[in-house]
Amino acid sequence: MKIGLIGLGKMGYNLALNMRDKGLDIGVYNRSKEPREEIKNEGVQTFDTIESLVDALESPKVVWIMVTAGPATEAIIEQVTPLLSPGDIIVDGGNSRFSDTLRRGDALEEKGIYFVDAGTSGGTDGARYGACMMVGGDEKAIAVLEPYFKVLNVEEGYLHCGKRGSGHYVKMVHNGIEYGMMQAVGEGLEIIRRSEFDVDFEKVANVWNHGSIIAGYLMQMTKQAFENNGMLEDIIPRIDALGEGQWTVEEAIRLGVSAPVITQSLFIRNASKDEGKFSDRVVAALRNEFGGHALHKR
Amino acid sequence: MKIGLIGLGKMGYNLALNMRDKGLDIGVYNRSKEPREEIKNEGVQTFDTIESLVDALESPKVVWIMVTAGPATEAIIEQVTPLLSPGDIIVDGGNSRFSDTLRRGDALEEKGIYFVDAGTSGGTDGARYGACMMVGGDEKAIAVLEPYFKVLNVEEGYLHCGKRGSGHYVKMVHNGIEYGMMQAVGEGLEIIRRSEFDVDFEKVANVWNHGSIIAGYLMQMTKQAFENNGMLEDIIPRIDALGEGQWTVEEAIRLGVSAPVITQSLFIRNASKDEGKFSDRVVAALRNEFGGHALHKR
Amino acid sequence: MKIGLIGLGKMGYNLALNMRDKGLDIGVYNRSKEPREEIKNEGVQTFDTIESLVDALESPKVVWIMVTAGPATEAIIEQVTPLLSPGDIIVDGGNSRFSDTLRRGDALEEKGIYFVDAGTSGGTDGARYGACMMVGGDEKAIAVLEPYFKVLNVEEGYLHCGKRGSGHYVKMVHNGIEYGMMQAVGEGLEIIRRSEFDVDFEKVANVWNHGSIIAGYLMQMTKQAFENNGMLEDIIPRIDALGEGQWTVEEAIRLGVSAPVITQSLFIRNASKDEGKFSDRVVAALRNEFGGHALHKR
Amino acid sequence: MKIGLIGLGKMGYNLALNMRDKGLDIGVYNRSKEPREEIKNEGVQTFDTIESLVDALESPKVVWIMVTAGPATEAIIEQVTPLLSPGDIIVDGGNSRFSDTLRRGDALEEKGIYFVDAGTSGGTDGARYGACMMVGGDEKAIAVLEPYFKVLNVEEGYLHCGKRGSGHYVKMVHNGIEYGMMQAVGEGLEIIRRSEFDVDFEKVANVWNHGSIIAGYLMQMTKQAFENNGMLEDIIPRIDALGEGQWTVEEAIRLGVSAPVITQSLFIRNASKDEGKFSDRVVAALRNEFGGHALHKR
Repeated sequence: MKIGLIGLGKMGYNLALNMRDKGLDIGVYNRSKEPREEIKNEGVQTFDTIESLVDALESPKVVWIMVTAGPATEAIIEQVTPLLSPGDIIVDGGNSRFSDTLRRGDALEEKGIYFVDAGTSGGTDGARYGACMMVGGDEKAIAVLEPYFKVLNVEEGYLHCGKRGSGHYVKMVHNGIEYGMMQAVGEGLEIIRRSEFDVDFEKVANVWNHGSIIAGYLMQMTKQAFENNGMLEDIIPRIDALGEGQWTVEEAIRLGVSAPVITQSLFIRNASKDEGKFSDRVVAALRNEFGGHALHKR
Repeated sequence: MKIGLIGLGKMGYNLALNMRDKGLDIGVYNRSKEPREEIKNEGVQTFDTIESLVDALESPKVVWIMVTAGPATEAIIEQVTPLLSPGDIIVDGGNSRFSDTLRRGDALEEKGIYFVDAGTSGGTDGARYGACMMVGGDEKAIAVLEPYFKVLNVEEGYLHCGKRGSGHYVKMVHNGIEYGMMQAVGEGLEIIRRSEFDVDFEKVANVWNHGSIIAGYLMQMTKQAFENNGMLEDIIPRIDALGEGQWTVEEAIRLGVSAPVITQSLFIRNASKDEGKFSDRVVAALRNEFGGHALHKR
Repeated sequence: MKIGLIGLGKMGYNLALNMRDKGLDIGVYNRSKEPREEIKNEGVQTFDTIESLVDALESPKVVWIMVTAGPATEAIIEQVTPLLSPGDIIVDGGNSRFSDTLRRGDALEEKGIYFVDAGTSGGTDGARYGACMMVGGDEKAIAVLEPYFKVLNVEEGYLHCGKRGSGHYVKMVHNGIEYGMMQAVGEGLEIIRRSEFDVDFEKVANVWNHGSIIAGYLMQMTKQAFENNGMLEDIIPRIDALGEGQWTVEEAIRLGVSAPVITQSLFIRNASKDEGKFSDRVVAALRNEFGGHALHKR
Repeated sequence: MKIGLIGLGKMGYNLALNMRDKGLDIGVYNRSKEPREEIKNEGVQTFDTIESLVDALESPKVVWIMVTAGPATEAIIEQVTPLLSPGDIIVDGGNSRFSDTLRRGDALEEKGIYFVDAGTSGGTDGARYGACMMVGGDEKAIAVLEPYFKVLNVEEGYLHCGKRGSGHYVKMVHNGIEYGMMQAVGEGLEIIRRSEFDVDFEKVANVWNHGSIIAGYLMQMTKQAFENNGMLEDIIPRIDALGEGQWTVEEAIRLGVSAPVITQSLFIRNASKDEGKFSDRVVAALRNEFGGHALHKR
């Protein structure tokens, strides 16, 4: 059975190679031509249009979407839907907000099309050699897809979490936790850096990754970050974000949960992107106003 | 009875004028000459040395210290102590850490000298026209000083909080609360500024200071800050701090209290002074490492 | 010109008496009968139905709604709207979410009806004797209402903030700031309570309200809280919330603002209502798992 | 060369067995008799007194202390020191505060005794089968100890961080990071639990530990926690702490670092142990005071 993969970004491209290596029959499409050409040279079958890709699939057709969450995913689903028939399956392997997934799934269900959310973690390396997928959706569709999920992920690295939306939900929270963990690492290293102790950060991250309680993939990445960037001096302290941390916080607030650590991690990212820092100016101006404390002026 | 005031900084100078206006008999000393000359022209009696000042006082001598907390206060106390006799009184009107006050008070008590801590709030205007004093110390010394406290502060603006150290402690916590309140104001105004609503911040602060739940001195200062600085564009978002907020947080941690708001307010100030933001670089580098997300480089 | 006031809850009832005292011509309606009877005895004209109330108003009719935000406000607006004509005015004096206000205002604008949002602060005492109102809406409607706003609020306690929605927005943020300020007060007093100093909390709150930087309405309320409740021993530490703090945080997140203090204040309230504390159990279980640290079991 | 190990608590006992398994020549002492008897049956040589243990060691004598940080460690060092000669080595394998380590090391250095701090992570399993040690101290002492560190820890799980104190410092920060990571996990799972999705927490923790970015030892422990305790219903949400998280926060504050996530994690633990929640009562009482919002009373 051929799978139709749409999207050859960082994650999609690596997942396509992963599929190829696992012997899956795949055809891929990407809007821009270059990645299509590139992967063609890697021995992956490519298609010039979504129509021709979907046309080449057998029933039940499986279209696996790996594009940026939001409007891009929405657009692809809109294009693909009319080409499918009842019983066919769309997999959203991107980082869509679970609420979008619920909405899209309901609409597709009315057409008899299965919609499966496959939250994918493990970064680009995971996509390439063995990822971790948190999957939500109807049992029938999962039954069709399970063999693929099993080979594409590391052992035990696939879970059918529950009903539609649960995959993206669990993945969203995974990323929220990731925000908190990363921020904890950053703060800890900052404290060491300001202390009287002169230690080798790459080595510290490495020892922490061997036998300690905080050992894990993030610590391995921390070690690599120092290996690749020295003391990070060239890096501008601006932390981008794609949305899942923010959605996790939105969920905490909607549900009345107290989530200080995940939320602080988001706020630190927000602050890192805020050039103006109006709030800080207000506080500085207030101190000046009542205490006569000098203002720093441009 | 003459009071000997040492220290003519922003707070001490204004307090001296306040004392003069209230008809108190005072003599003042300040290490540097200029403020001495200046206040002499305002009709306040000045002394060129601490010795001559203390010598001019009658028993029980009252020496009121208004210098920067820490080594400066320590040094003055060391100079003054040998000039005093049992029954004399030192008032520390500065923002000393309560633990220093306890230590100093114990040492002075062994010499029979009273040590009174008078945490002073209200800013420079308060010092000048009517402050708020939180006072700790022995009943006997307080009895001597109470007439002064009553006239120097606004009505009901003086409290003998309790034993030695309690004045500085209550003042310390006052400042911790102040940190939290100021940060709340900053955050709220930042939210409005980023919103789709175009409002006049000076007017908003003003209306909030007339009849609302958050009306108060800080809101009046907020109004003035916008009145005096427009949209604060010239102000560098760097928030200095003198120590009391930090001590409040240290106390929270020592006592096992959860004090997220006061502590966050301190951390925002810390971050505002941190040019390097190593922690943020670590997080940015981590994202790049596992997700291939682009780094912003210098 | 008669104003039609709908809603005699804590705020509406007091505002009605305020209107009466200021000599305004008002008629009031409330769904349940008791408050209607009660205020009738206070000399306020009452109506048994919304229809009869609106019918008694002259053009441009002004209907002032003071009911709970959300479905209750929505329902009243739906009932009132068909009774109004172009040029008439609805004032929402409740704590509606600004996004609801924008939506409702757009719908009413299509019918030629003005919709004015009047965020009202000052608590029940403010409503009764002089409140603080942050108002958004069309200049023409504001011109009609301004004389009322001026007499119902304390001097300078009324501001036409800007376009429709801005009143509720500024009021929302006001409450967010209020959350942060209240939490700062709570934390500070907790620190003092756990310290070695034995102070009178009512007196401390009182002195802080006379001449200090944190003096203001909240500090006056703090003093009263201790005056009325001693050391608060009978009070269950559960902090309810009506929504505006949460909306402020939602706005911070939507706009990408870092608002740690307001958000922490919300989270503390969330936690105070969470009996289960699943997150804390997870952490306790984790400690047990890796460190063998004893679990506390029921 | 025989090592003298003092302390057979959870960590010391397992480390002793680890030493035995690795073929090290050890003698152990513990104040209470039972663990001594128990480990004797496991084939480990025991001593009834510290004197006899130290006496049995050859020069340079190595005394490895594994007792609770604070007064217990202090007492053992005081007992051991007079029994040692210049060139001998004390290893503190406990979780001592680095400042104590610096103080103790300075005093021992004056006697010519080496003091090595070996922060030990990995929990009881790590101590037993391969730990992670962050070590600080003089090169000469480290040269003697390195062969032991190499066999007792997992591969790459030992680092000579730097000068004396650096081992305990790096371990302290490690634990601070651990606090933040654990709290992030707790918050994330709480959000899922309150959501509309019904997932199996043990399975979620397991999939997160296979191929995801947050995979690691803590996630493995999370899986085990649910495996061993179901939905944690019997567990009281009270999170104890031993001190290293608090010290990390103290360091952040001392150094002027902004460490919101690690600090919040500490505060959550503090709050979990606070039965009274005075701060929350203050806020609840304030709401009642100004808004007439009902109080929950006992």
